[in-house]
Order: sequence, then C-alpha cells, then structure tokens
Amino acid sequence: MTRKIILDCDPGHDDAIALLLAHGNPDIDLVAVTTVVGNQTLEKVTRNALSVARIAGITGVPFAAGCPRPLVRAIETAPDIHGETGLDGPVLPEPTLELDRRHAVDLIIDTVMSHEPGEITIVPTAGLTNIALAARKEPRIVERVREVVLMGGGYHEGNWSAVAEFNIIIDPEAAHIVFNESWPVTMVGLDLTHQALATPEVAERIAAVGTKPAKFVGELLDFFGATYKEAQGFEHPPVHDPCAVAYVIDPSVMTVRKAPVDVELSGGLTLGMTVTDFRAPAPADCHTQVAVELDRERFWDLVVDALERIGDVEA
Amino acid sequence: MTRKIILDCDPGHDDAIALLLAHGNPDIDLVAVTTVVGNQTLEKVTRNALSVARIAGITGVPFAAGCPRPLVRAIETAPDIHGETGLDGPVLPEPTLELDRRHAVDLIIDTVMSHEPGEITIVPTAGLTNIALAARKEPRIVERVREVVLMGGGYHEGNWSAVAEFNIIIDPEAAHIVFNESWPVTMVGLDLTHQALATPEVAERIAAVGTKPAKFVGELLDFFGATYKEAQGFEHPPVHDPCAVAYVIDPSVMTVRKAPVDVELSGGLTLGMTVTDFRAPAPADCHTQVAVELDRERFWDLVVDALERIGDVEA
Amino acid sequence: MTRKIILDCDPGHDDAIALLLAHGNPDIDLVAVTTVVGNQTLEKVTRNALSVARIAGITGVPFAAGCPRPLVRAIETAPDIHGETGLDGPVLPEPTLELDRRHAVDLIIDTVMSHEPGEITIVPTAGLTNIALAARKEPRIVERVREVVLMGGGYHEGNWSAVAEFNIIIDPEAAHIVFNESWPVTMVGLDLTHQALATPEVAERIAAVGTKPAKFVGELLDFFGATYKEAQGFEHPPVHDPCAVAYVIDPSVMTVRKAPVDVELSGGLTLGMTVTDFRAPAPADCHTQVAVELDRERFWDLVVDALERIGDVEA
Amino acid sequence: MTRKIILDCDPGHDDAIALLLAHGNPDIDLVAVTTVVGNQTLEKVTRNALSVARIAGITGVPFAAGCPRPLVRAIETAPDIHGETGLDGPVLPEPTLELDRRHAVDLIIDTVMSHEPGEITIVPTAGLTNIALAARKEPRIVERVREVVLMGGGYHEGNWSAVAEFNIIIDPEAAHIVFNESWPVTMVGLDLTHQALATPEVAERIAAVGTKPAKFVGELLDFFGATYKEAQGFEHPPVHDPCAVAYVIDPSVMTVRKAPVDVELSGGLTLGMTVTDFRAPAPADCHTQVAVELDRERFWDLVVDALERIGDVEA
Repeated sequence: MTRKIILDCDPGHDDAIALLLAHGNPDIDLVAVTTVVGNQTLEKVTRNALSVARIAGITGVPFAAGCPRPLVRAIETAPDIHGETGLDGPVLPEPTLELDRRHAVDLIIDTVMSHEPGEITIVPTAGLTNIALAARKEPRIVERVREVVLMGGGYHEGNWSAVAEFNIIIDPEAAHIVFNESWPVTMVGLDLTHQALATPEVAERIAAVGTKPAKFVGELLDFFGATYKEAQGFEHPPVHDPCAVAYVIDPSVMTVRKAPVDVELSGGLTLGMTVTDFRAPAPADCHTQVAVELDRERFWDLVVDALERIGDVEA
Repeated sequence: MTRKIILDCDPGHDDAIALLLAHGNPDIDLVAVTTVVGNQTLEKVTRNALSVARIAGITGVPFAAGCPRPLVRAIETAPDIHGETGLDGPVLPEPTLELDRRHAVDLIIDTVMSHEPGEITIVPTAGLTNIALAARKEPRIVERVREVVLMGGGYHEGNWSAVAEFNIIIDPEAAHIVFNESWPVTMVGLDLTHQALATPEVAERIAAVGTKPAKFVGELLDFFGATYKEAQGFEHPPVHDPCAVAYVIDPSVMTVRKAPVDVELSGGLTLGMTVTDFRAPAPADCHTQVAVELDRERFWDLVVDALERIGDVEA
Repeated sequence: MTRKIILDCDPGHDDAIALLLAHGNPDIDLVAVTTVVGNQTLEKVTRNALSVARIAGITGVPFAAGCPRPLVRAIETAPDIHGETGLDGPVLPEPTLELDRRHAVDLIIDTVMSHEPGEITIVPTAGLTNIALAARKEPRIVERVREVVLMGGGYHEGNWSAVAEFNIIIDPEAAHIVFNESWPVTMVGLDLTHQALATPEVAERIAAVGTKPAKFVGELLDFFGATYKEAQGFEHPPVHDPCAVAYVIDPSVMTVRKAPVDVELSGGLTLGMTVTDFRAPAPADCHTQVAVELDRERFWDLVVDALERIGDVEA
Repeated sequence: MTRKIILDCDPGHDDAIALLLAHGNPDIDLVAVTTVVGNQTLEKVTRNALSVARIAGITGVPFAAGCPRPLVRAIETAPDIHGETGLDGPVLPEPTLELDRRHAVDLIIDTVMSHEPGEITIVPTAGLTNIALAARKEPRIVERVREVVLMGGGYHEGNWSAVAEFNIIIDPEAAHIVFNESWPVTMVGLDLTHQALATPEVAERIAAVGTKPAKFVGELLDFFGATYKEAQGFEHPPVHDPCAVAYVIDPSVMTVRKAPVDVELSGGLTLGMTVTDFRAPAPADCHTQVAVELDRERFWDLVVDALERIGDVEA
C-alpha cells in the first residue's frame, strides 16, 4: 500500500536526494512538495526544488513556496554546508515546472483536508515554519494527518550547537508547535542520520546506476562530502533527509523508541534542543518517538533502487 | 480624510465599545473585522463580534474568525473580567451577519494587498496571533500597511503580571513578531488606557444618549466595572480598546513618545513585557512609539459622539 | 540616636561622596567599610576607598576587601563613567590606613554577629556580591541586621540596559539573594537617584565650604559630570550613592513605597531588572520598599553639612 | 603515592560508602570532610557524616558543616531516595567526633592554602554550594588545587529532570561557577555511575567481609535499593559517589573523555543540564573531562578491599 506524503523541504543536497527517493520509490505517492527558508533563502531552495524536479522527471505534483523566514528568530542559513546556491556542486537545469500559486501553508492545508483522515503523511526535512503555520491556521489538520515523520533534532547529538540541530534551532518556536501537537511525530534526528554516511562504497553503488540522476547524486555527494569534512570534521557526509523518507517507505529500516520529546525555547546553551526523556517507559499516550538505529544496508538499497527506477530522464 | 481600518479584536466589553466607536465615527472606514482567541475562546468572541455588529447596525463589512489559540503558549482567557461568554452583562441578540468564509489571516492579507500602499491601518485590540501570522504568511503586507495602532502592553504598567499586559502575555511570540517588523507601531498600553476610566459622569453622558446601543454600552460598563473592582481593585473600569481607535481618529487625543519597544520572551518574571527604552532620544529609524497621556474629555466626546451618530438601530 | 552602618562600596565617585557623608554626619556611626568589584577592579576600588579615608580623616574603622568578581557573570566595570582608576579626576593621596586582614564577607559577618540584633544597618552602594556571600555563609545575619538600604536597581528606570541598573546587572544572582532574604530592604534606585543631580548651584554650595575634602568633592563632580554627559546624556550628574546613606540618616528625606521587588535572572532583554509589583497594595509581610521622591534641598543640606563638620583634614 | 583529598558530601547512602572507601583505601589521605545541604538538610547530613565517621573509625580528620541552602534556588532534598534522616535504613550511632568550628568554606580554603600547590584534590559528591563559595571567597584556591573530581551531572543522562542530575540542578549557579573555573574538573556523572549497580553479587561480596562496617553498607544498600526501585525503576541501585573517589584512587578504573562542559542556567526544560560538547576534538586548553565507562569489577574490588582494610571497628 502506497503512502501519500507531502515533502516539506529546503534543497539542500540531502533534501534533493530525499526528493529523488520519494519520487522513485513505488511505495510513496508524492502528492505535494513545499519549500521553506533553511539551508538557503526561500527563493534559492524553491528554485532548487524545481530544478531537482526536472532532473528527476517529476511532473503532475504541485510545488509551492512557503515562508521566507522563521517565526521569531532571524534567518540563519547554511552556506558552509550547502554553498551559496544551497545546492552547489552540480550544474542545475532551468526549472520547467511552474510553482503552484498557493502559499505552501495553504497547499498543505488543502491537501490534508481534501484527503481522507489518516491518508496524508507530512515529511518535513527543513525548519518547521510551514508546518507550524499550517497547524495554527487550520488546527483540524492535526488529527487528520496520519503522522509527521521529520528529519531534525537529536536526543544525544547536536550540530548547530552542542545539543541542537540545524532544522530545529533555526525555528525553535515552530518546532515547539509541531512537537506539542497531538499528531504522531517520529523524530529522525542526528542520532540516526549520522549513521547514514555516504562512504566510498555507497558512492560507487550510486555511480554504478549510470544514469543522469545518479550522476547528479554523485556530484551532490562530492560537494557535500567536502563541506562536511571541512565544517564538521566528518570523514564521510551524513545524508540526513532521505532517512525520513526511508522510514515512511519501510519503518523497519530503523529502530525507534517511544519517548516524550519537547523543544527548549529559552536555554542560554540549549536553545532548540529536542529534549527527550528516557528516564522511564514512555506513558501510554506518548505521541512522539525517536529513531535510534539504522539498517544501513537496506537504507542504501532503497536509495539505489529509487535511482534505478527513475532511470534516465529526458530533461 | 477617513482612515480605512481593520479591527482585530476579541470582544470583550471594551472591544465592543471600540467596534461601536469605529462604526459610528465618520472619520473611520471600517473595512474588515477579524477575531482571535483572547478574552474568551475564538467561538465565543466571534459570536460576540457578530452580535455587536447587529446591535450597532454594521452591515457590508466582512467579519472573519482567526486563530483559536496562541502560537506557542497554552490558551489563557479572562473570564474574571469578561465573564463566561466574554461579554457578560447585556442580553445579546442572535447574530444576523454571516461570517466571511476566509480565515482572518487571509482576510487581513487580501484587504491589505487589494488596497493601495499606505491605505490600511491595522488596529489590534487583542492578542496578536492573527497579525503575526498574516505578516509571516504574506511579508509584503508589512510595508503596505499604513501603521499598526494596537491596544496592548505598557511601558511602566502591567496587569497580568507585575510588568506584562494581557494582550501581549497571552501570545508573546506573536507580539514579538509584530513589534519587530518594520511597520510603524503605536503601542496604546496600560499607561494610557488606565486613564480612560469610565467614571459615573461618563456613564451618565452615555445614558443620556438614550438609544439602544447606548443602553448596551451602559450595561457593558456596569458588568465590566464590577469585575474590574473585584479582580484588580479599580474604582472605575479602564476602557482600553476604544483608545486605540480614538488615536486613529485623531492622534492629538493623546500624547505619544517615540521609543524602541521589544517583547521579552524568556524572562522568569518578565515574560511578555513590552520593554521600552527611554534612556536616550529614540534613534532616527525608530518605528515604534508609545502612548503617554490621554485627553480624557475629548476621548469620551468621541465615544459619545459615535453613539449619537449611530442612533437607534432597528435590529 | 546614631545608626551603626557597614558601608559596602566600590569607589567610584558617588561612593566617595557617600563615604564622606557617612563619616561627617553625626547620626551615622560608620563601623566598617567593605569593598567589592564594580565600578572598577577590586584592587582599584579598595585603594580608592583607603585614599578617600585619608582625605576624609577616617581612622579607627576597619576597611576590608571583598570579592574580586561577581558570583556567576563575567566582570563588568564602568570606566566610561568612573575612568581607568575608578576615581579619575582628583589626585589621590597614598593611603595611610591598613586594610583589615579579614575578607569583607567575614568582616560583615563578624560585625553583625558581635553587635546586638537590630543594631547594624548594611548600606551597599555597589554590586551585591559581598552581601550575598555573607548571607549564604552565615544565614543568621539576616535576622540580626536592622535593615539593608541599598543603592541599586530602579522600578521604572534603567541605565545599563533599558530596564536594569549597573549595581544589579553586574551580579544579578547576588541581587536575587539579597532581595529574597527576609530582612527589610529599601531600594534606593535610579527613580530616586536621578533626582539627586549635582547642578551648578550644588557645586557652588560645596565649593563654598572651602576645605580640602570639599575641593576633592568638587573635582569628583567635575569629572563625573563630564562622563555622565558624554555617556548617558545627563545635563548634571546624578549622585547616586549618598542617597542611600541619606535615607539612613533621615528617612524623611525621601518618600518610599512598600512593594514586592524581585530580580530577573533569565530575561533576554530584562536580565537584572528589579521587577516591582505596584498592582495592588503590598501584602502585610512585604519586606521590600522602594524610594520614590527625593527632598533635594534637604539631601544636599546633609551633604554640605557633613563636609562642614569634617572640616579641613590634615592628611 | 597517596592523594590528599577533601571530601565534600551530603550523606546520603552513597556518600557514606564514598567516605568508607576514602578512609579504607591506602592511596587516599582524607584531610578534611565537609558537608552541605543536599540529600537532606545540612543538620541531618552533618550528623550522618559524623555517625559514619564513628562507624568507620575515622579520627583525626576535621569535619566541618557548610551551607544550609543553595546560592539562588530554594532548597530541594531527596527524601524519596534517602529517607527522612538522609540515611534511613541502618541504626546510626551517636557521633563521637566534634565538628570543626570553622565553616566548611573556610576549612576548604585553609586546607588548600596550607598545602603545596597541586597537593589537594577536591572530591564533591553533593551540590556544589560549598566549593563555589570557596572559589569566590578565595580565588587563589583555583590554581592551587590539583583537580576537582565530582560526582554530578551527566552528558546524556538525567535523573531529576530529563537532562539534569540532582547534585547539579539543586544549585545550578554553584555548578556553573565550579565548571567555569580554570581548575581541572572530572565529571563523574550519571553516564558512569549508572554502571555502578549494586547487584546481588555485589551485596554478597560485601556481606562476606563480615565486619560491622560491611554490615552497615549492606543495610544502606537494602534501603537504597528499595527506594531506587520505587522512585526511579532501577532493578539494582546505582552507587554514585564512591565512583568519584575510585577515580582519584586509580583513574584507570574508568575511561574518560575530554570535552567542554558548561551548566545551563536558564532553560525551561534544561535547567542544570551539564551541556557537553562532543562535536569536535576538545580544544587544547579544555580543562573538563567526563567519565564514560566503568570497569565494574575493579570498582567493586576497591570498595570491598577498603571494607576489608577497615576491619571491625570498636565504636
């Protein structure tokens, strides 16, 4: 049974791979793509999303631009990881898809409300500004959504501070809104995604696919690998965002643990931390869970398989 | 020259009087009314707004409901001041107006964007959730709006804590958004509105108008006066919200002072304080000003005049 | 009846005047002087205190040095107001008094515990580090002290931030300790001390005393007046610290108001604010009061009188 | 070569065992014992320390009482873990040792200053109020102390909140002071001490020693085991405090990792968290390290060995 998802993203190298995975995997029905400021400005990540759509051969899916800035905090982007365009490395084609005229927040709301309860899964791989605004503008989406599977946070790891992750700390108030609503939330955080390293073996498997989209992914990993080494000291780059899509395709690709998660809004050292309480078994009504351990082999199988299914796209 | 205003409110006794003042005064063109959770739940304050419209004979103005809860904090209402309905005291008629089908946030955006730049003034007399969401969803409204004249906050007075006022503390993040955008903001806070006391002389002047709407205002003041005495020890009730409307009608009804204002989001004792910096002359680009001293006589003249112009309404 | 006081200070131009006032006034019995980092480093303010003692002819009073840094925060001094020495302007004589060998905290404790309950008043005119440490090291001083009359804070005015004053914000945790202990605390804050301006008339009266100590005060005011004009835009410098001593000499020199006061420790904009709650009459057990209005004439009379009594000192 | 230590504690079941370990181990020279509010009130833990001294046969070591309350926060004790006396379970003998007349803060300062630089190690197994006050009152101890090896905090585990440990959260400002001074600090936190579980095998080994002190330890573990099961769901109780002493005896009993550690003072969810930054190799001047993995076997060998050396004490 396929899963209908809205992918809310800020491409972004790993967002681009997440988009390819969602498009290529047969168990995912990509019903909308929305963009939000994050790795780069809204304008740049939106253009990137449309370019990736062309590379992947995505058609018939509405793409909408969302919020150009976080709720409360000043804009913070990640050029040291994703470059000045947000998708440095490959040469990007001109987009051919037209943006949906709706605001991302309205596209999210319309999509959720026009499907059956429990039908739509939201997969955010960026700051949570769009999702938070959608939940505040139309509270009924909260119980209508099947679940939220997001890339962000971490229970024991941080990257933008000692204990906070980029997608959360750039808009902690939005994250607080998303984690505190009653929908099921799966946090695919750094604890998990730091296991999804694009080693040379992975790069070789992707190169072996031999298509233009696969070559594009190879170029993404080359750039991303260099910046992650330079900026954060990683030997091989962690490919965060596709992990969230992989969980939707097949939850058994990772182990998860139920635990209360909340977002710190006022700490001097801990702003944006996804505070996770493992002290006792999670209460019966706990609606949050965190991703713990990745089955690396199967994860990369999913990525390679998606690329093979996409094949060579006439752009 | 008349001023086109959007009144964003949570009636609320003083909101109701603000609505009557805006409707009855010839220099105000009320182009939209939006509601938001605050003095009571969204459902209750929206119904109250429509009932007041009937009492005042307001027709042809779109009314839209907005956010049922603040951005981040839990809902806090004020039944000890406004009663269980949010407008306890008078018997309210069934509404006859129909709600606009748009969300308040979209009505605000549509109204601002469909008028000329500098044409629309936003007058919030409630928590700032709707206004903040509108500014985040459509950032272009910020430079298109003429100004924001809001009832809320205080530079030296508080009511919901030692240093914070109800409209700000119920959604401090929204207030932070509104005060930190670049539009001109006039804060008509407690320092000013605690001068707008409905003394027995005021009540007599209103009673002397002799119409149904005036009688309605009298009943509002009776209830509001009793709760303000009980809950906050006021001898006569401060009638906050019409002060903001009065400033739009005639800025000379109060003195104002330019000063930087920001909203405290993390203080243990000071959450929601509108921190105002009077230490030095305001910088040239200061876009915020605070109301200081009210010309009481002229203020009540405006209220009585509006009631007289409204006259007796066939409901 | 004379009042025995411990003066805890960081001279500092106005601290020096406070010391002269305490020494010269016949109703004050100066039983100890302690120093603490503040306007300048501990080393500098301690040397300044001893130099002022020589200028004033103070003998037989123990002087002890205290804490060289605040409890939690980094050291912040005020060279833009008090210069590099902490007492720029006059030429200072070499100290002749020797420092007491005890730590200021122990001298405070020993002094309080060796006098009768209710005998000692503590007059801090600096950051509250020493006082807080004394209260924590020997909690019994709290009920043994007569009262604490401190210069610091403000209910509606700030100088080091929009809403915080220097003596409090440099060690807010210490201030929190002092305001939250059960002893009577009188806050002589900026609201009061900004009324104690050394106008040219004041300077003339002091000059007319014609003694060396008076000449020294004149030189202090010259320097202090220039820096206050430059740094904070004051036409005439506010002479903060002697106000606290004046209150001990004669409480009727200012009006005070009972109100709960607490210190903000976590606000992003309000750190170190002395949050004062005027919303309702102070509760019966309220142990804090704030100074409101100064009788300027009588205040300066006290200062001039003290200088006259000190006379010309052979240094 | 023996290590001279000051044990600053709040007995407390595991503090009592730490005291026995320090006394019985031949590589430790216990030069002072100080007490502080924590597991119970100062009065109770001080009496407990003296009773344990009698049980262990400790003589000739000064014991001094310190702070009866934390710096800023209200007192919080742990009766659900340690009972009403702070050492519930065994029948305690009347103390025979007399308390040193000095305040613990002064005993710590005197001890450090009267020994050679690098000679004294401070081992806090309680809230850090005494240590923080000593560092503030006599800053020279900081570079004179060999190192601080403390039980408290945790980099990934909490017990008093999701992310904070009892000894730190009861006085976070004191902990902030201790972690931010330049002395070497080893944090033996929950990550380590939750490995020091008193399993039935451990209890049997202790029982087999057959002496009165060993019987006393057995009774401590019985009570402590029951409360830890009840309050925190532990199958076997974690015996925190002796781990810090064990590290001083033989650092190879655990692995440690250098990493910057700081204490959160303002977080709504994270107050008192010992925020540890593992993102990059620790900088060359990093003075903090955290305990990671315990050699359980050797740890319990040390405890049993100490009990055997203490033998049967005539009380």
